[in-house]
Amino acid sequence: MHRVLSGIQPSGSQHIGHLVGALDNFTRLQGQGQAFYMIADWHALTSKYESVEEIWPATQELTATYLAAGLDPKQATIFVQSLVKEHAELHLLLSMMTPLSWLERVPTYKEKLQNAVADLGSYGFLGYPLLQTADIIVYRANRVPVGEDQLFHLELAREVVRRFNYIYQREVFPEPEAVLTKTPKVPGLDGRKMSKSYGNCIYLRDTNAEILEKCTRQMASDPARLRKTDPGNPDICPVFEFHKLFSDDATVQMVNTECRRAGIGCFDCKKRVAEAMIRRIEPVREKIEGHLARPEDLQDVLRDGSARARAVAAETMADVRDAMKMPAL
Amino acid sequence: MHRVLSGIQPSGSQHIGHLVGALDNFTRLQGQGQAFYMIADWHALTSKYESVEEIWPATQELTATYLAAGLDPKQATIFVQSLVKEHAELHLLLSMMTPLSWLERVPTYKEKLQNAVADLGSYGFLGYPLLQTADIIVYRANRVPVGEDQLFHLELAREVVRRFNYIYQREVFPEPEAVLTKTPKVPGLDGRKMSKSYGNCIYLRDTNAEILEKCTRQMASDPARLRKTDPGNPDICPVFEFHKLFSDDATVQMVNTECRRAGIGCFDCKKRVAEAMIRRIEPVREKIEGHLARPEDLQDVLRDGSARARAVAAETMADVRDAMKMPAL
Repeated sequence: MHRVLSGIQPSGSQHIGHLVGALDNFTRLQGQGQAFYMIADWHALTSKYESVEEIWPATQELTATYLAAGLDPKQATIFVQSLVKEHAELHLLLSMMTPLSWLERVPTYKEKLQNAVADLGSYGFLGYPLLQTADIIVYRANRVPVGEDQLFHLELAREVVRRFNYIYQREVFPEPEAVLTKTPKVPGLDGRKMSKSYGNCIYLRDTNAEILEKCTRQMASDPARLRKTDPGNPDICPVFEFHKLFSDDATVQMVNTECRRAGIGCFDCKKRVAEAMIRRIEPVREKIEGHLARPEDLQDVLRDGSARARAVAAETMADVRDAMKMPAL
Repeated sequence: MHRVLSGIQPSGSQHIGHLVGALDNFTRLQGQGQAFYMIADWHALTSKYESVEEIWPATQELTATYLAAGLDPKQATIFVQSLVKEHAELHLLLSMMTPLSWLERVPTYKEKLQNAVADLGSYGFLGYPLLQTADIIVYRANRVPVGEDQLFHLELAREVVRRFNYIYQREVFPEPEAVLTKTPKVPGLDGRKMSKSYGNCIYLRDTNAEILEKCTRQMASDPARLRKTDPGNPDICPVFEFHKLFSDDATVQMVNTECRRAGIGCFDCKKRVAEAMIRRIEPVREKIEGHLARPEDLQDVLRDGSARARAVAAETMADVRDAMKMPAL
């Protein structure tokens, strides 16, 4: 049977990149085995340890977003990382047998250090991918929905698993495999990757008016098309990327044809993208707001999910300690 | 009230250096407040992760040694580190706010890496002093009996405590203070520091015959005294160091005088050291063997102690999570 594990950090509101890139994938996979979806509040500490008051509100919002995106707490286990201490225990055990050089060579490590807005020079930030490994394998998950930027982390997890199983001569953990999203990367309003730190996001809780405003006023388009009468090139236009993600096939085809012969102007084209996005986002937003209005229900989901997660993680750890000949008194 | 925390790694038999340098200190302090003495099996993994089968037997032997040296489980809490998950949780939280550079600059780190017999290039070995910090402060210990080589680690613990209390604006942890042993460093048989890796130890479980043999045949003495008729110099003679640690005052004074005027030969002098050591070690050894013959009793001590330790550590962690605004569901 498949065991699925993935998670998101509670460090801000979710945007359409999360919805299309991650949450749709999470929802699709919840029916195909046992699925665990984590709210990675310990990971959030790497950048938020000095503003921890933001983490619990973000945790509640992320839970509401999970549910609004279609996760069903009866099918999937939705839980808070910090409520399952076994992640920390396994992380510590793995740290004793994981070469420092494996972590230092992780490509995202130096890249993030260089581009960081927050102070990321902590011991814990270096160990980030190893905590991810523990997150995954403490559930013996074999399928991990991730973005492409996480593939190296998953390769590290596989390497750590092989090393552990080899040293202790027991197949304690399966090697987890990445499940890449089928959706191409969602660009931000400026054409770069959509990211809070770039200020180029459309958030799932943006109002319809905000979405329309962001699309028509902030969204980048083919820079070579200066006048409405110039023909455009959808192949290099970020607006067309959004059409492909959110508009129906007929609209996509129309835009593809009309843009090239200046039959549709950029403003009109962006307005149609906004309308398509609103159709997708509005029901999600309404569900998020509905869930947030009932915080006790959200806490119930997290309490139940975390208890279920703990039971599975505890079972794995009993096996880990046995393989490592540690006392069970 | 004082809270005392210290510990020893279960990675081999204890020698007279442990007895005089650490265990006597532990015993003296158990009456002066609440004392926690740990068997640091997670720390042992830094060098023993590939030979874990040695750790549990060493844990039992160390427990027997704690008791034989005078620790009273009614006064002191004797526990196994790996049975108190809160150490791992706190270690992880601290890792998120501890600069990597603080750990890289620990003097013992590079020194141990260079002199290592085992592979110490792991992520966990770099974090060793931070796990020690967690070990100490999870009990809010304010007094830590340590050797001089651990003073920098304790300074790091104090720095981490100040940083934590400052960031979260609450005096969650007291700054722990070192309690240095009053005994000078115990030399090995060859005059270097007594250490298993140098093969220069007198172990607490050595038989009387082994002690006599090691003292008379392996113990280094003043190299300038070649013949029995040459006068010696106790000030530079390792044998005299042992006399000061183990012989009665009258013998120390006699040796100090007679050696300088060749009134006592080295063999005879070493024999007297051996006799003094045997008087000290024999009753300890017999107690160790007695405890080891009742493994269930040892396990009871560890089970009870670890449960008491967990209760105290859990209380601290509730306060830590509250200070860090983490959910308690």
